[in-house]
This record gives sequence, C-alpha cells and structure tokens, in this order.
Amino acid sequence: MKKMVYFFGEGKADGGAELRDLLGGKGANLAEMTNLGLPVPPGFTISTEVCTYYYASDDHSYPPGLEDEVKKAVARMEKILGKRFGDAKNPLLVSVRSGARVSMPGMMDTVLNLGLNDETVKALAAATDNPRFANDSYRRFIQMFGNVVLGIDGANFENALDAIKEEKGAKQDTDLTADDLAELIERYKEIVGREHGADFPQDPWEQLWDAITAVFRSWNNDRAVAYRAMHGYPGEWGTAVNVQAMVFGNMGEDCATGVAFTRDPSTGENYFYGEYLLNAQGEDVVAGVRTPHHLGKREGEEGSLEEVMPEVYAQLLEIVQKLEQHYRDMLDIEFTIEHRKLWMLQVRSGKRTGAAAVRIAVEMVRDGLIDEKTAVSRVTPDQLDQLLHPMIDPSVSYTVIAKGLPASPGAASGSIVFTAQEAMDAADEGKEVILVRKETSPEDIRGMAAAQAILTQRGGMTSHAAVVARGMGKCCVAGCGEISLDEEAGTMSVGDKVYHRGDVITLNGTTGEVIEGRLPTLPPQFDDNFRTLMGWADEFRRLKVRTNADTPEDSQLAREFGAQGIGLCRTEHMFFGEGRIDAVREMIVAQDEEQRRRALDKLLPFQMEDFRGIFRAMDGLPVTIRLLDPPLHEFLPHKDEEIERLAKDLGVAPEQMRRIVDSLHEFNPMLGHRGCRLGISYPEIYLMQVEAIIRAALEVAADGVHPMPEIMIPLVGVDEELRILREQVVARADEIIADSGRELAYLVGTMIEIPRAALTADAVARHADFFSFGTNDLTQMTFGFSRDDAGSFLPAYVAQGILPKEPFQSLDQEGVGQLVRMACEKGRSVKADLHLGVCGEHGGDPDSVHFFHRVGLDYVSCSPYRVPVARLAAAQAALED
Amino acid sequence: MKKMVYFFGEGKADGGAELRDLLGGKGANLAEMTNLGLPVPPGFTISTEVCTYYYASDDHSYPPGLEDEVKKAVARMEKILGKRFGDAKNPLLVSVRSGARVSMPGMMDTVLNLGLNDETVKALAAATDNPRFANDSYRRFIQMFGNVVLGIDGANFENALDAIKEEKGAKQDTDLTADDLAELIERYKEIVGREHGADFPQDPWEQLWDAITAVFRSWNNDRAVAYRAMHGYPGEWGTAVNVQAMVFGNMGEDCATGVAFTRDPSTGENYFYGEYLLNAQGEDVVAGVRTPHHLGKREGEEGSLEEVMPEVYAQLLEIVQKLEQHYRDMLDIEFTIEHRKLWMLQVRSGKRTGAAAVRIAVEMVRDGLIDEKTAVSRVTPDQLDQLLHPMIDPSVSYTVIAKGLPASPGAASGSIVFTAQEAMDAADEGKEVILVRKETSPEDIRGMAAAQAILTQRGGMTSHAAVVARGMGKCCVAGCGEISLDEEAGTMSVGDKVYHRGDVITLNGTTGEVIEGRLPTLPPQFDDNFRTLMGWADEFRRLKVRTNADTPEDSQLAREFGAQGIGLCRTEHMFFGEGRIDAVREMIVAQDEEQRRRALDKLLPFQMEDFRGIFRAMDGLPVTIRLLDPPLHEFLPHKDEEIERLAKDLGVAPEQMRRIVDSLHEFNPMLGHRGCRLGISYPEIYLMQVEAIIRAALEVAADGVHPMPEIMIPLVGVDEELRILREQVVARADEIIADSGRELAYLVGTMIEIPRAALTADAVARHADFFSFGTNDLTQMTFGFSRDDAGSFLPAYVAQGILPKEPFQSLDQEGVGQLVRMACEKGRSVKADLHLGVCGEHGGDPDSVHFFHRVGLDYVSCSPYRVPVARLAAAQAALED
Repeated sequence: MKKMVYFFGEGKADGGAELRDLLGGKGANLAEMTNLGLPVPPGFTISTEVCTYYYASDDHSYPPGLEDEVKKAVARMEKILGKRFGDAKNPLLVSVRSGARVSMPGMMDTVLNLGLNDETVKALAAATDNPRFANDSYRRFIQMFGNVVLGIDGANFENALDAIKEEKGAKQDTDLTADDLAELIERYKEIVGREHGADFPQDPWEQLWDAITAVFRSWNNDRAVAYRAMHGYPGEWGTAVNVQAMVFGNMGEDCATGVAFTRDPSTGENYFYGEYLLNAQGEDVVAGVRTPHHLGKREGEEGSLEEVMPEVYAQLLEIVQKLEQHYRDMLDIEFTIEHRKLWMLQVRSGKRTGAAAVRIAVEMVRDGLIDEKTAVSRVTPDQLDQLLHPMIDPSVSYTVIAKGLPASPGAASGSIVFTAQEAMDAADEGKEVILVRKETSPEDIRGMAAAQAILTQRGGMTSHAAVVARGMGKCCVAGCGEISLDEEAGTMSVGDKVYHRGDVITLNGTTGEVIEGRLPTLPPQFDDNFRTLMGWADEFRRLKVRTNADTPEDSQLAREFGAQGIGLCRTEHMFFGEGRIDAVREMIVAQDEEQRRRALDKLLPFQMEDFRGIFRAMDGLPVTIRLLDPPLHEFLPHKDEEIERLAKDLGVAPEQMRRIVDSLHEFNPMLGHRGCRLGISYPEIYLMQVEAIIRAALEVAADGVHPMPEIMIPLVGVDEELRILREQVVARADEIIADSGRELAYLVGTMIEIPRAALTADAVARHADFFSFGTNDLTQMTFGFSRDDAGSFLPAYVAQGILPKEPFQSLDQEGVGQLVRMACEKGRSVKADLHLGVCGEHGGDPDSVHFFHRVGLDYVSCSPYRVPVARLAAAQAALED
Repeated sequence: MKKMVYFFGEGKADGGAELRDLLGGKGANLAEMTNLGLPVPPGFTISTEVCTYYYASDDHSYPPGLEDEVKKAVARMEKILGKRFGDAKNPLLVSVRSGARVSMPGMMDTVLNLGLNDETVKALAAATDNPRFANDSYRRFIQMFGNVVLGIDGANFENALDAIKEEKGAKQDTDLTADDLAELIERYKEIVGREHGADFPQDPWEQLWDAITAVFRSWNNDRAVAYRAMHGYPGEWGTAVNVQAMVFGNMGEDCATGVAFTRDPSTGENYFYGEYLLNAQGEDVVAGVRTPHHLGKREGEEGSLEEVMPEVYAQLLEIVQKLEQHYRDMLDIEFTIEHRKLWMLQVRSGKRTGAAAVRIAVEMVRDGLIDEKTAVSRVTPDQLDQLLHPMIDPSVSYTVIAKGLPASPGAASGSIVFTAQEAMDAADEGKEVILVRKETSPEDIRGMAAAQAILTQRGGMTSHAAVVARGMGKCCVAGCGEISLDEEAGTMSVGDKVYHRGDVITLNGTTGEVIEGRLPTLPPQFDDNFRTLMGWADEFRRLKVRTNADTPEDSQLAREFGAQGIGLCRTEHMFFGEGRIDAVREMIVAQDEEQRRRALDKLLPFQMEDFRGIFRAMDGLPVTIRLLDPPLHEFLPHKDEEIERLAKDLGVAPEQMRRIVDSLHEFNPMLGHRGCRLGISYPEIYLMQVEAIIRAALEVAADGVHPMPEIMIPLVGVDEELRILREQVVARADEIIADSGRELAYLVGTMIEIPRAALTADAVARHADFFSFGTNDLTQMTFGFSRDDAGSFLPAYVAQGILPKEPFQSLDQEGVGQLVRMACEKGRSVKADLHLGVCGEHGGDPDSVHFFHRVGLDYVSCSPYRVPVARLAAAQAALED
C-alpha cells in the first residue's frame, strides 16, 4: 500500500486541495491552507483508502505499517508544538474528525480533547491556570468518547450531570465549580466502568486508536448510509480521518472562535461576513446559547472583532482575501483565537442562496477571478430554481402541521377550499384560496388555475396534481397522507387538529410543508445577473430546450423563459374547455362513425383556435402536438346524477348512458384503450386533429407567421401502428395543404413511452421523423409502477435506499435509461438524422438532462418554469464533456 | 436469373418434392409424382422467384426470358399430348393454379378450362361429341376468367345465369341445353365488354398471361395477406403458378373424379379411404350436391369404384400404396378418371384429427416407415391437445349463437347460472351448469370449480377466468362481447334472443363457440399410442416441463400428465379457502404489526397444510412457491353491505372499514402495491409464508418424503428488493431448519416479470438461485397492455395484422422475447449455473416453447392439461436444432 498518512504543519503539507478524494474535503483543505502558509494547527490525515481497506478486510483490520506512520506523524506534531502526547507536564491534545470527499454534515463522528486523562488534565489546569476549564474539558471528553467510541447511551452522562447540578444547586453547567466537575469526572468514569465493562482508557494511544476506529466505523452507521443513499454517493468512497492539535477559544477573554463567509451568503454582496464569540468553543457559536457578534464594525452595534482585536481582525481579513483569490470561490471558514493567536480550522466552498450564487458567479467573472464556463458550472440548478418561484421569507419561523411531497416549488397562502367550483367562485370574488383534494382529475383544472396552490392527500411527484401544477408554475404539495379530508363536513384533519373551510394555511412546495396561517413570501427575482448568466449558459449548451405547453399563454411565458419551441402540446387538456366537453362527450357516446363525425365537426373549430394561438406564440419555432392520448372514460362523468344529466343533454336513455360509461371502465386504464390505440380504433378522431393542426398552420402562415408543426402519435408499441397512422395522417395533411395551394412543412413522429417501442426502435424509426421520449410512462411500465398508486410504497423505497431517487423525478439511468439509450441507437441505426427529444417530466431534472445530453438527444422539453433550469443543466452537461 | 419454368410430364420432371420453396407445395408434388412414373397430366410450374421479382420490380414486370421459357414449356405439353394451344381441331386446354410453399386453402385464385374460345369450343364439342359439355365448360371459363382475371363482379354473371334459367323455365343449371348455354355465352361476352371495356380475349396466349398475372396478383389480395399475417408467413415467400393440361372427369359415365386418404383421417386406421363421383368435376365432390360413393367396396353399399371400375381401382390402390411408401406419410390425393384413364392431380400430406395423427405416427414407426424422431415431429401440439379434452362429436351439426375467445379447450353443456353461489348450489344437487359472468374474480373460484364450463363477457385469453379455467382443465369461452348479461333478471341476451337462468347451452372452448342446447361430446383419449409417442418425445427433449398448480389434487394430476415438478404454486389462491379468508382480511385491516402477526398466526397452519399436501404429491420433484403477489384489496369486499358485515365480524367501526377499503383502492392495481412491494412493506407476511413452507417441508421429510422447495419472490424490479428479501427469507428458513436438527435444501429466486428486472438481470442474478420468467406480466408491461382491458382492441389488432398473434397467447419474440433473451444472458453472465424457467401462460404454447428452448431455459411450466403439449413441443424444438 502506498502512503497512508498525510502530514500538515509548519507551512508544509504532504498534499493539497487536489487530493480531495484521498484526504476528504476537510483534510485536503487543511493541507492546502498549510501550504499557503496560513496558521493551521498541525496534524495529519489518514486517507480514505485506509477506510476502504478496513471494510474490505474480513476482520476489519488496518493495513500493515499504518501504526508506524501514525506514530511518526504524532512525533512531528510533538516536535512542532513542543508538547508531548500523554505528557504529564505539557500534553498534546488532539481532535479526531471524519472527512469524506463530500460534506456530510453531522452524519459521522468527532472526538475532541483527546489525550486528556487523570494526569494530563492536571497539566492542562496548570498550563492554563484554569482548573475549571481543564476539568470541564476532561468531563466533556469522557462524555464524548464514552458515547461515540464506546457506544454508551448518552443519557447516562446527561442524568449524572443533571443530578450533580441538583445536588450543588447549580442552575447552569457554568455554575459548577472545578471541584464539582472533578466529582462529575469520577461519576463519569464509574458510568464507563459499569456500561462498558472496563475502565475509561487512560492511555492516550489507546484513546487515539479507538477514536480512529470509531470514525471509520461511523462511515457505515445508519444515518450515514441513509444520507449516502439519498444523495447517491457510493459506499466505496470511504471517509478520511483527521487528527489535529487542539486549540482553544475558551481559555479566557483573549480567546475566541468564529465562522465567516467571504461574501454575504444570502445576497452574494461582496463584503466579509461573519460572527464570533469571545471565550467560546466552535459548537457554542452554532448552538446559539449566546448571541454572537459580527466580525466587522457596524454602525450602532458594539463588540465586533474589528473593534475588540483589531490586529487579529486585520490578519483574518488578509487571510480570507488570500483564500478567495486562491480558491476563486466564495468560502466558508472556521477559525479559533487562542490567546490572541489566530488559527484556521476549516475552509470550504460556502453554501449560498440562489440569488447569492448567481450574483457571486457573475461578479467573479467581472472581477476576473473566474471565467464564464466556471461561472455557469458554479450555480446549481436548484439554486437557479429558487429564483423562479416565490419563497417563504427565510427570516420568519413557522410551525409545520404536515408534510407531503414537494410536488411543485414555490410558496403561497390562502383559505382552504375543497372543490374546484369553490376555488373558481372564490377567485371570482378576488379571494386567495388553497385547493385541497384527495387527488385531482382533469375536471379540476380550472379550479386549480383559480387557486393559489394545491394540496392533495394522494398521488406522487408525477400525479395529475403535480404535473399540472408544475405546468402552471403553481405551488403544490402532493401525497400528503397525514391529512384526512371530509369534503361534506368541509374539514381537513391532521391528527387531532381540525381545519375548516376558510381557514388559512400556507404551502411550501419546495419542501412539501403544510403550515398553519399566512406567511410573508419573497417574489421571484430575474435581474441582470440572472440574464447574464443564462446568456453564457446558452452559449455553452448543445441540447435545445423546449417546453411542455398547451395554451398560447403558456407558450408565450415559456418563450420568455427561453424555450426554443414546444416539445409537448397535449391536445386533450383543450377538451375540457367550456363548450368543448359537451362535444367531446357526444363524440364518445356516438353509436356509429356518422354520429362521431358530427361531434368531431363541432370540435374542429375549437381545436383550430387553440392551435392558431400556439403557432402565433411560437412563430418560427417547432411545436410538437400530441394527438389524443387519455382513455375516453376520462372525459365522461362517473356519478349517477351527472350521468343522468348527460344522458338527458344528449338525448340518450339513462340506462344506455350508464352502459356506455360502464363499458368504458377499465381495470388498469394506464395499460388500456388509449393513445394510438384510439387512433387505430377511431381514425376519424386523429384525422380531425390533423385537420385542425394543418388548417390552423395554413391560416397563420397566411398572416406571415412561420408555423412549424410536428405531429406526434402517442403510445406506439408496435411499428405497424405507426405505419398505419402515419399513412393516414400524411394523406390527410397533404390533401389539405394541396387544396390550400400553399406550402407547409410538417413532421410526423412518435413518443417512445412503451418499453416495446424502445426495444424495437429500429422498426419504429422507419415510420418516424422524430422520437420524443415519454419518460413518465416509460418509467411506469419499465418499473411496473403506477405513478398514481406508487405513493403507498415509493417514498419508503427511497428512504430505505432501495432506489436512490424517485424515478419519476430523476430518470432511472440504469433501467429506464438503458431503454432510452437503446432506442436512440437503434433508431439512428436506420435513420441517421432521426430527431430525438424528451417530453417527460425528466426534461426539467438536472441529472436527467445530463443523461440526455450524453445519449445524444437533440432537445429536452419541460414545463415553462423549468426552462431556465434545463438551460443551465444542459450547459453544465456540455461543459462536463 | 436462373431457371424460371419447371416442366413435368412423361415420367420426368425438372424438380421434385425437395423444391417446395421454389415450386410451391402443389408444383413440387406434381413433379415428384411425375418422376415416380405416375400418370400426371403434363404441365409446368413458374417458380416463386418470379413472383418475388414481379413484386420487387417497380412496374410489376416479369424477368426477361420468362416468356420464352413458358412458350417452350407449352410446346412440350403440345408435343406430349398431340394437341395444340388454340388449335381449332384439337385444342390444348389448361388450368392455371396458385401454389405457395404452404397450403393456403381458398386464399388465392385459380382459372380452369383456359384455352377455350369461340373456335376451340367447337373442337371440344366435336372431340367429346358433347356440345352441351363444351358450351358449359366455355361459359364457366368466361365466368371464372371474367371474375378472377378481369375483376368483374361475379354477381353480373350470376344474374345473367338466373335470368336465362327463368326465361327457359330451367330449374337447375343442368336443365339448360347446349343452345341455351350458347346464348348464355353471348350474354357473358356482352357483360365482359360492358364491365371490362374490352372484348373477352379470344387469344389463348393473352388468356394465359392474364391468368398467370392474376394468380401472382392474388398473392397480395386482402384475404391472402390477412391469412399470412394470421399464420406468420412472410410476404417474401411468394406463390408459384402451375399450368397443367386439363383432364375431364365429367365427359360421361366412364369418367369420374375423387379424393382419397391413404388412411382414415378421423381414426388413423390403416385402410384406403376415399370418395368419388361419376361424371363430375373436382368441385362437385366438395360442393356436396350429389352424394359421393366410397372408393372401396363396403358391405350393404353399392356403387364403389372397386365395383364400378375394378381395374382403375386396382391401379389407384397400387399408386397410393407406392405414394405412401415414397412419402412415408398419410396422404391426401385428388384424381380424375377421363374415359377410364386415371390421372393424378394432387398429392399432399393429409389433414387428420389428433387421434389419427398419434395412431398413424406410432403405427408407421412400427411398420418401419418412419423413425421415432419423425413420428414425434409429425404430431402437432394442437392435435395432441385435442386428445386431452372432451370434444363435440364432429358428426353433429349445430347452431352457434355467439363467439368469444377460445380461452380453455374442450366442450361442455349445462344450464346457465349467473353466480358462483348458484353454481355451487347446483353442483350440490348434482346438476350440470355453465357459469356465465361479466368477468370472474378470485372469489368465484369455488363456483368455477363447481361448473362444467365458464363463459365470460369480458377479458382476454389470459384473463382471470381463462387462466383459472385452463388450470382446472375446464372449458372456457372468454371475452364474448356479443352477449349482454342482466344478473338480477337472470337473463343473457344475444341480439334479440334472450336466454334465462336454467336454459341449456353448450360451450366449445376449442373454437370459442357458444351453442344453443345440449350436444353430445366425445371423451378425451389416452391410449397406448399416446403413451408410446409421449415416451419418445421425452427421450428427445432437453427442456423440462413443470406445471402451474396450487393444490395437491392439481399437483397429482399434473404428475400423471408427466410434469417434472411445479414451476408456479400461487399461494394466494389458498387464501380464499373456507376459514382462511377471514384471517386474511383480519391481517389486511390490522392497524399495527402486532395485530397483523396475530392474524398471520391463524393463517400459518392452513398454509402448512397446503404445502404438506403439495410436497407429498411432488415427492422428489422441485416445487416453486411464489410468495404473496396480488394487491391486498383483492381480498377485501367492495359492496357496502359486505363491508359492514366484515366490520362487524372484526369488531371495527363500519366507517373505519370503509376507509381501509377505500385507502387500498388503486387506479392501476397491476402497477400498484403488490408482489415483493408488499414483502418490503410487511415483512411478516412473507416470513409467515416462508415458515409455513419450511416447516411443512421438514414435517413431510420426517415421513420419508423428499421435498424440494424453491421460494420465489415475485415482481422484483430493483435488485435491492431481492437482496433485502432474500436475506430475510434465508435468515428465517435457516433458523427453522437449524431448530429442527434436520437438513433441508431449498432455493430462493425471483420472477422476471418487470421489464426493469430483465434490463438489470445481472444485478438481480447476484441474489437469485433461479429466474422464472413471468411472461404474462412481462408482456403486459412491455406492451403497456392490461390483459383485462386489452379485449377492446387486441382482437382488432390481430385481425388487422398489426400483431401476428395475441401476445398473451404466444410470446412476442421480437419485443418481449428480447427482454427474455437479455435477462438470460445477463443473468448467466454473473452466475453461470443460474436456473432458468418460465411460468407464464406461454409455457404451454408450442411456438413459445420453441423460443424458450432456443434461448436456453431449463424448463417451462404450464397448466396440468397443457403438460403433454409442452412435452411434445419441447421435443420438437430439440429435434429442430
């Protein structure tokens, strides 16, 4: 085995930031700072390869030679600091910390103050002239070591602490004297003896090895495993272990500890931003027991570091400037001041809001720190998405009453209503409402449009409510199983709590939270920085980005967001409009082709009107229109009285109407008579739609608009389906075009959403100008998951790590992706210029966009509000190549 | 291009039976007979390659040189016969017939008497001294040529014939005189002139080329295309054209025509069997206007050929014996006697019943005509299947009132009942009933068992009713959309006809026919010939054949049919038994794990009892047991009153019960919370089943039985599902085995029925001892077809040729088969000894069995009554290799 232990100290380190995989993020950056000549307490990092070795060996042992390397590294620390590990006079104390290649906050274990024992604690007391501090450090160490390393339930120590406080009449921990703490140490040691079955180890070396092993073991604790599963990090990475000399910010009023950002992490403004506490340890800043002070002087405030220790502040400022210049990124640093000496304990890329991310990236380019490619890579798609939706003011705190799936981002408040009709009525009165439903159906669409946000009890991330809400850019929390609804009583209950119609709630669609009452929200932000960044992204990407839009309004909006055409225009949503649904129902219950044609004739002008508007909005850009897809029964009523009303309207016997509705019932509508199967059964439906598309295109063309229609046939599973339908479509379209005396180019293609279509894509491609991957249905069928029903088990699958992510949110590259890749290859093997795109929900998911870039699609299509996210992700995918 | 025209005549032919692909079946056999020195009218065959050339050329032209070759062939015919084509004295007349490499009866066109015109008809009259015969031949020729070659609607000729009969007062065609027919000929020519826009061609060469082209064109007529699509024959095969000198069996009382079989096609008995008519043409025998006589003398009958023309009969007998010796098969021959001269017109393999097929195959081996391999190849799986089920006595005629899908073969009569309860009550009284339902559900199983046969209005070939009926070996007609049911009124209607509860009907599950009244049936036959043939089949096959069986009785039956184990034992069917369903429901509505465990404890002894019986029946053979698969709501009642009763029984509030039932409702249960997803959610259910399996196995092993349990985890789509469940299953099983102090080998594997499992089979195989392909669900998901709903479009898909066959009946090798092959390869790439089988319905379909043999499965599994069919198909697949 190669080198296992990497030393850092006295201005020189064995590695640097480039060794992140081997040393972990923390270790690599400690080395880097050391090399930069910054004041870093010396120490060493045991590499992640040792972790891998440890888990690969049958008896969880260490590689030979490790002990020796560690000993040498400790000796170097001793030499630098003039202290000795376990020395009764001048003991070296160390921290032992985990550090993987990515930050996994709080997931793994840490041990501080290691090296203290009954002897060295006295030396520490003498050296600091502060016996209370020394004893407190020791009892903390026993407690931490007992819990983390020896696995003793922490409650044992907490109880002992509470007991002694009661005995001594101490209200706070700080009320305990040095002697009280000495007594507590004895009790702690008893606890260790009892619970662990052995004395607390006094040998610092034994302490050290036990702590190292504990950190390696913590890589596979339940928390860490779940976290990795959630983020898709492989277990093989392993963690490094960092052993570093302790420095203390809590040894007196000339000591301090603090955290800082090189720029404001909320706004991105370029000033040194941070907080510190005098006479405190790192965790005190985080814990928030005392209110920290700002680092820089501020008007009307006192106690800044700039004022209290101006020379240390100046040094710190110089260091962070150097660091930002060096790392060329906004940084998050931790430091400790021990007797006015500054020590750098950590540096890493700073977490930031979306607004800050964009501003920092753009300003750093302006200042020559980074180039445009780096700027585009620096902003995550999630950060960008924050900018596109209203968000709850981060400064307010609130109470979450239930949690569902974050189905569509943003935030909104309003009064509870339970039906689409109520929502529309309220909207007419100018009221803001939240539509709460068990689940939504296409009949609810106008109610959803009228509401501020939607909350459903059932359904997953790609349920009807979720998909439609995202399309509308409207906040939605779906599949919130904790609530139960009683529509008639007009109540929503969560546990014992009951909310009534009219009660105000707030939804956070970004987190899935349901919140009591009204909260202030911040509006979306599209500033110059945003536009600048998106402009760079557009230069770098190869994938085009289209949008899924069914109306002229949505088309217009998407175009403003940068959409380069429509990838999916669903014609059936148009069928629910006023005056239309009646004709649709008349068509469905038609007893022969003649009746059906009469009803279709009524629909034709409506469809033409829709298409004219969309073609105008997308002047000069392609518009992919999917012919009718859902099963016919989705358009029929199902309640007895509604069926009777419809029967009366259409002049049909109620009995017969019931029979028709009944005969269209399906056990598994997802796998039933829909998509092109309808086109095969009732060619006149598709031909009416084709006529509407072509005639609308010819009409707007006469006005100087340049329409680019692409007719898409859904749900093809057998090449012969497409051959037959394409022939019919082309015949009708060409006839209309010829009659018009004009010219019009159009394409005919298909969705690839049935596994069999992907498997036989070479045969299918012969009849297609383009493929558009319908990854929603493809995912449903490849997994055998109904997206409307999977809510009962999918969340648990993700939580248990059976699946890394919800496959309806982020494409399952291993399984479904295999079919996508196969279809691309097979399709292009027979038709090299076959146009390829995706119109499933995955078109707006960054990881999926990367995949689609890699397999060579021409475009992705997503809801209007995801278009900027997809543009950024597409650019990042191209830059990764 | 190589040789295009193949001559036969005067004891020598250009080809023989081995050129079937090139000459078609008819042409190849005419050549073969000629070479054998048999009396065959001379002629020639234009090869199928000319047909292919014709369709491949842009303007549908013939290859250069064809005309020349045809001319030479006609010249050779003329020379042999001393006649001349178009000669006014002694004209050569020919027939022009199609002939593809497989027989496509009635699909393509034929022209007889070609060469007749206004001149040659007189010569024919003179030569035969029979002007009426000559004129009738001519008018028939014009009619046939006009219709087939010139495309004139046949009604024109029929009307003219009717008119002249009326004018002449003729009742029958035969009442028309030679002069009447001469007049009719003139009218026919007028019709041709009018409808065709040109005179009837008098030039025999023009007639000949037009007829040849018409036959080639008929290869692509709608009938032929549909027939090929149905049988999966490629259009590229093409047809040959046979031009042969006419001989006439209708030139007087010393003429005759007949058909014969070398053995009895019904029973297979070895005697010369056939019928003939004096003074008649071939079509008269088939048309059945006159009753034909037997060929051989029979007691109490007169007019046999043996008596009427003993010397011709002797010649014929000698010829057929020679032919059977030559072809080594039972043959179907056609012959004509012209003035006591025997001419052989056709020979081909004779169609036969299942019983005859088996008897002939076995007896030919005994007689040294064929070897055992040939015998096994000779019997088709469908023929074998006939033997396994009762069939309607083929001698009775009957009226079909409706037609559904032939879901489970056999035939049965009984009174109509509409509910499972009625069926059970009737069975208790010893009555025979037919259970008629919209569709069946698991709750109907005992009623199905009590009925003679099942008829459903909905559902396809793999609907619940179909699958269960096949498993029971019970006749079933499914998806009979023509009937409509009114359960309350107790009526079944077909159009205007109404049948009441108690009315007797007969079902033919082999054809899908629903028949009024009671019909006599013949029982299944398992004789020595059957056993001998199956014994040979077993020697040749590599694939093992298991059965799908859920009870000890079915297991026993299947073993008698030759099953080598159980490939699929569905545990959930057991859940519906008496006393069990209550515990199952208690388990489902349990509010916590504790309650669920209590209910499971009640189920454990029932499950153990089932497994003990099955292990005993399958002593020494593997038994694959699938853990719980269907969604839980299948076990719950759905009607209000039943829900209330259940609530009362279980001591739960009706409201709460309704909520539970409601909460388990799914939009697409096929893609919902079922299979191993239940096992992940409720590990205790699977663990109870594992306990029952292992404990039952240990118990019967104590009695000296050798159980071989294979635990199968259904619906795996993600390898991690299987990893988790396998770990749990193995832990529980090993614990029980260890506690028992005995040894027990068992396997743990999975079904491959989710496309994703096939795509990621390498990962899945790591945790599986075996894969069993669940091709029913795999087909549903790969196509996106719900088998319960596809009835609304799948039949039309097959009829339109979009799909060659119902993919639920015969595996879609192109699409679904690709996944099966991929899973086999990927699975064995990580585990070379992975055991592979199939337990979907396709395991009993011969074409699918061939596929499974080719991809290297170890076994197929099918319902008990299909086991012999699968054994035979497996042997034939092996012999094909």
